[in-house]
Amino acid sequence: MSNRVNTVPGDPIQAGYKAWLNYKRIEPGESNESPAAWCSRIAVNDKSSSVVMDSAVSELIRGIEAMLGRKPVIVSLEEAAAGEGGYLIIGTWDEGGALLDRTFDGQAHQAIGPEGYAIRTNRAERCIAIGAQTDAGVLYGVFAFLRLFGTGSAMDSLDLTDHPVNSLRMMNQWDNIDGSIERGYAGKSIFYADHEITTDHERVRDYARLLASTGINAIAINNVNVHQFETMFLTDRYLPAIAGLAAIFRAYGIKLFLSINYASPIEIGGLTTADPLDADVRQWWKEKAAEVYAAIPDFGGFLVKADSENRPGPFSYGRDHADGSNMLAEALLPYGGIVIWRCFVYNCKQDWRDRATDRARAAYDHFKPLDGRFMDNVILQVKNGPMDFQVREGVSPLFGAMEKTNLMIEFQITQEYTGQQRHLCYLVPQWKEVLDFETYAQGEGSTVKRVVDGSLYGNRHSGFAAVSNIGSDANWTGHLLAQANLYGYGRLAWNPELPAEQIAEEWIQQVFGACNKKLVQTILGMLMASWSIYESYTSPLGVGWMVNPDHHYGPNVDGYEYSKWGTYHFADLHGIGVDRTMKTGTGYTGQYQGPNVELYESVATCPDELLLFFHHVPYTHVLHSGKTVIQHIYDTHFEGVERAEQLKEAWASLNEGMDPSLFAQVADRLAEQAVHAREWRDIVNTYFYRKSGIPDARGRTIY
Amino acid sequence: MSNRVNTVPGDPIQAGYKAWLNYKRIEPGESNESPAAWCSRIAVNDKSSSVVMDSAVSELIRGIEAMLGRKPVIVSLEEAAAGEGGYLIIGTWDEGGALLDRTFDGQAHQAIGPEGYAIRTNRAERCIAIGAQTDAGVLYGVFAFLRLFGTGSAMDSLDLTDHPVNSLRMMNQWDNIDGSIERGYAGKSIFYADHEITTDHERVRDYARLLASTGINAIAINNVNVHQFETMFLTDRYLPAIAGLAAIFRAYGIKLFLSINYASPIEIGGLTTADPLDADVRQWWKEKAAEVYAAIPDFGGFLVKADSENRPGPFSYGRDHADGSNMLAEALLPYGGIVIWRCFVYNCKQDWRDRATDRARAAYDHFKPLDGRFMDNVILQVKNGPMDFQVREGVSPLFGAMEKTNLMIEFQITQEYTGQQRHLCYLVPQWKEVLDFETYAQGEGSTVKRVVDGSLYGNRHSGFAAVSNIGSDANWTGHLLAQANLYGYGRLAWNPELPAEQIAEEWIQQVFGACNKKLVQTILGMLMASWSIYESYTSPLGVGWMVNPDHHYGPNVDGYEYSKWGTYHFADLHGIGVDRTMKTGTGYTGQYQGPNVELYESVATCPDELLLFFHHVPYTHVLHSGKTVIQHIYDTHFEGVERAEQLKEAWASLNEGMDPSLFAQVADRLAEQAVHAREWRDIVNTYFYRKSGIPDARGRTIY
Repeated sequence: MSNRVNTVPGDPIQAGYKAWLNYKRIEPGESNESPAAWCSRIAVNDKSSSVVMDSAVSELIRGIEAMLGRKPVIVSLEEAAAGEGGYLIIGTWDEGGALLDRTFDGQAHQAIGPEGYAIRTNRAERCIAIGAQTDAGVLYGVFAFLRLFGTGSAMDSLDLTDHPVNSLRMMNQWDNIDGSIERGYAGKSIFYADHEITTDHERVRDYARLLASTGINAIAINNVNVHQFETMFLTDRYLPAIAGLAAIFRAYGIKLFLSINYASPIEIGGLTTADPLDADVRQWWKEKAAEVYAAIPDFGGFLVKADSENRPGPFSYGRDHADGSNMLAEALLPYGGIVIWRCFVYNCKQDWRDRATDRARAAYDHFKPLDGRFMDNVILQVKNGPMDFQVREGVSPLFGAMEKTNLMIEFQITQEYTGQQRHLCYLVPQWKEVLDFETYAQGEGSTVKRVVDGSLYGNRHSGFAAVSNIGSDANWTGHLLAQANLYGYGRLAWNPELPAEQIAEEWIQQVFGACNKKLVQTILGMLMASWSIYESYTSPLGVGWMVNPDHHYGPNVDGYEYSKWGTYHFADLHGIGVDRTMKTGTGYTGQYQGPNVELYESVATCPDELLLFFHHVPYTHVLHSGKTVIQHIYDTHFEGVERAEQLKEAWASLNEGMDPSLFAQVADRLAEQAVHAREWRDIVNTYFYRKSGIPDARGRTIY
Repeated sequence: MSNRVNTVPGDPIQAGYKAWLNYKRIEPGESNESPAAWCSRIAVNDKSSSVVMDSAVSELIRGIEAMLGRKPVIVSLEEAAAGEGGYLIIGTWDEGGALLDRTFDGQAHQAIGPEGYAIRTNRAERCIAIGAQTDAGVLYGVFAFLRLFGTGSAMDSLDLTDHPVNSLRMMNQWDNIDGSIERGYAGKSIFYADHEITTDHERVRDYARLLASTGINAIAINNVNVHQFETMFLTDRYLPAIAGLAAIFRAYGIKLFLSINYASPIEIGGLTTADPLDADVRQWWKEKAAEVYAAIPDFGGFLVKADSENRPGPFSYGRDHADGSNMLAEALLPYGGIVIWRCFVYNCKQDWRDRATDRARAAYDHFKPLDGRFMDNVILQVKNGPMDFQVREGVSPLFGAMEKTNLMIEFQITQEYTGQQRHLCYLVPQWKEVLDFETYAQGEGSTVKRVVDGSLYGNRHSGFAAVSNIGSDANWTGHLLAQANLYGYGRLAWNPELPAEQIAEEWIQQVFGACNKKLVQTILGMLMASWSIYESYTSPLGVGWMVNPDHHYGPNVDGYEYSKWGTYHFADLHGIGVDRTMKTGTGYTGQYQGPNVELYESVATCPDELLLFFHHVPYTHVLHSGKTVIQHIYDTHFEGVERAEQLKEAWASLNEGMDPSLFAQVADRLAEQAVHAREWRDIVNTYFYRKSGIPDARGRTIY
């Protein structure tokens, strides 16, 4: 798959590479007013010389030159004011000079916080000003300005402030030093090859640019499953080269984190234990932290997958997750570093015969009792759902349940269970459902987004993390339209209130141009429908896991049914679903709060789309939709194929006027999706027809 | 798995290495008469100096020395007769001298044919004579004598002749040049590593000794799937080293064959086609044959998998298998070489929705119309069943159907679908069922064994082939008891009339010693029960294919149900099985002859063990056994686990007195088998209970 983009016509190497920083030329007359009038000069304080400010300036020059065809001139604050015509002025409050002060009032200064920015057209003084408290804020302001510019905003009346809602906006790379990417569907790693760290800094820098432009400010650059060689990232063998990567990200306001192996004191430290209460172990980590900070002074901290899926952790020593994470947090504390501790902990050697154990319960059962025991520079990273990034599952009940603990949410941009970037699946609507979920933890208004932005419990550290979907493919994400997920994640981490439609539209306009309204609306429609389409032919009523084991692509209804992974649907000739009620099932519903408990506990009120996640029902059970479960399965699968065909047709209608290489690579993927949706449909329908014996009410062909 | 034998106590490296050439010391008094009296001298014609005769002499010395603790002396024929005491005399009729002539009459000479031997105790002249027509016959006679010696035959009254029933007794190695073995379960290849041919000739020689001792006289040393590097076996890059391997096998009477890539003229010949009717292609193969025979004068010929599972072949050029094989046969003819052309040809991209296409029909449909068109030095190699080495399937209807074509049968010693040498499965009983199968091709008595020994149709070439089960594991076969399959295959190829029990007993006695009767009987009982046990918990009523895709280990009832491989059971809530009848099904039953057609066509007469192979029946269908299909499934699976436990217990009872390293390695495997049989039982029973809704009549736990 990864080479596919190289087979399309046009410019095979670069098609899609610039992604949403494509900066298409703005033809005269497209904009309300000649933007050139404002953009021929850029005023910047020449005493300002941070690497981040350098990035901001160079990004501004690059974007304007690309869109206007003319390179703006850099001038000093004094020169700008003295010269003829309009100009841009960028800077921090401290260094931006009197003009910035005049343009923005004190309210703006305060409103935007450390990473926000303000943009305002100051017609009286012939300039557009981009001001911020920090260099990073200026950089975000520059990217915002370029986005507004590229998507047709009127330049003569700009007046906005913006700031990130979440303090930590993080990317998790699941890249391995051998160049592979766990759950990667867009080529090889851009960070590593053949057990060495890449020297292709250009590609890494372009990734940093893409991330920073969406507001990302942190990255963990290696897989949470830390293997032998990656364990040595904390040693001289790799640390200097990692410091080189950190420098690239630093220039774009992004802090570098490392995933670490909990058994490091044994594997690279020569100790005989990794017990978090052992004095030598504690000392070893303190010394290790000192070494890392000596190499990377602004190092972010450690991301840890411990006691999960056979990874080592504190359990081996009779310690718990608080012991384990606090020990690391103590080592990082002197440097301001943080520990991000994943809550993806469950029994991965379950017996499928055992219906009492419920993997969905595991994270809550493990972590809830530890609330209050974590140090303040520990953040628990909680997957959006209690299982594992399924097409549809409940929201993790840990959100809202940990009053005294820093939490962040983990999403998966890479489409492990959602079509692996061979199928179209725009995930922002899914993420927004989770973020808008009402936990009732502190009464109404206790949404997940308020848990993870820290406002509900007043946390100092909190935010977003997500598993990246990029690789060495020319267009970064394999499926060009999967870029919208990468872009959308960053935008949503910045501001969870942004509508999914707006995010999609921004991305489309920046990649394909803003002027072809039909194109924008068509692609927007495709993106917005895509999650529902994928769900309709793969995962009815929240059932999940009907995929081939290991690689997780393609239909296999019983693929995880008799496995050790705790992932079952219990389909028999009568019915299907997992009884997670307190009354007759695993009791998982009791982990929710307030009205959610009864909502999910009762088959009468449980939402259709999660029915099989919470209840085992007969195939003849009638949904709120009025259909039976079995007929719902048949109907959605037939419809899903039709809608996948429609995606293909919708794209085909855009052929004229689009870059042929961009057109072809997406057409190729959508053709595959349509064929493969048919395979899903027929296998799933046949499985349930053979099992239930109930024919399709509409008499369509089932095998 | 492959390292497991190294974890047992005792002699971890050598445990089981000598296999049935273990030659345990015979303690005084064990035998009826002091065997030493016959064995202190060996008379051999010193003018005889073939490499095979050298092997015969050295094997005789080695075996006697090991069993008696004293090395026999080689003497000339004259010295032997002149000296004191008894002796052994070995030789061909031509070179063995007058004593051989006096010991054996002309009838013996004629009866044994070119590869047979005669053994007789000549008490009058104080000797035991081993005579044969050829050096190879002498070698087989020596191994037979040592077997008789080791298993307690009386030395003072030997009088037998024996000869192989099948002229070609072949081993197929599925070894790859990278050191892997396709479907290998006993370590890495002993022939190859890292794209080079081994220089460890000692291990290859020991394999040749094992094979020759059972009567094997041919070997194809590389996988029938011939990949890029193996294609170059026909070039200078590898041919000299292959000639070195040929020399090792030559000394043990074994001809070397190569599997070839049908596209070789393109891949290594620089031609643009491999069309068998193209003059350049024909010339290329002729020249290639000349090169190969220049390097290996007694080269056996080519083994070919063509137009099968994505391998290239004559179909690409609109030619058929006769065109393809005859072209190669013509190239080999001047040198006496033969072409072995596999009939494993079917559509491996079938649509599972299509119930009309039946993979079981494929070989017959492809090859029957070509009968009479193959050259006389072409042999078609036909798998024992029409599918692919399942635990239980019908016998291939090609046997008996090809009156004018040389056929050989292909068995699979390596336990791909029969437990992968982690489960015990002695396959000789299965093979005997196939060999004894009555085809009715020429009326009664037209058994498969008479087809493949060439007697039914008077073929010049015919015989046995089988896929080897050995690798670099110290005990050759991973599971020590799986050695019995390797041994048994050779013995059965020599003489298909040998009872499975006798073969097993021979093997046991040679490996563990003959004197502990309880041990011999216990292991014999285990081996004889093992196929039935494995079948009982894995593969009810001939259904097949309920395994995990690709690696084929472990239960997965729907594993191949929605695949492209033509391998389905069509289970629904009402019933299960493939309707292969002429009346309502695929018509496969019509490929059989005589009474077999009706036997399989009628659900009333179809044998229980093949019911689901030939018929789709309700779960409530009553078998000849009186049980319903569903109850049969439940019962056999519960019983299978109990019987697997009994295997473990039976072995445990042999603990005392057995070499601890031999004991432990088998105990280990049997423990795993017992655990895993339980997994098979519960998954298969649960699958069918959930599907049928019919409870176990005996109320046992099903999940």
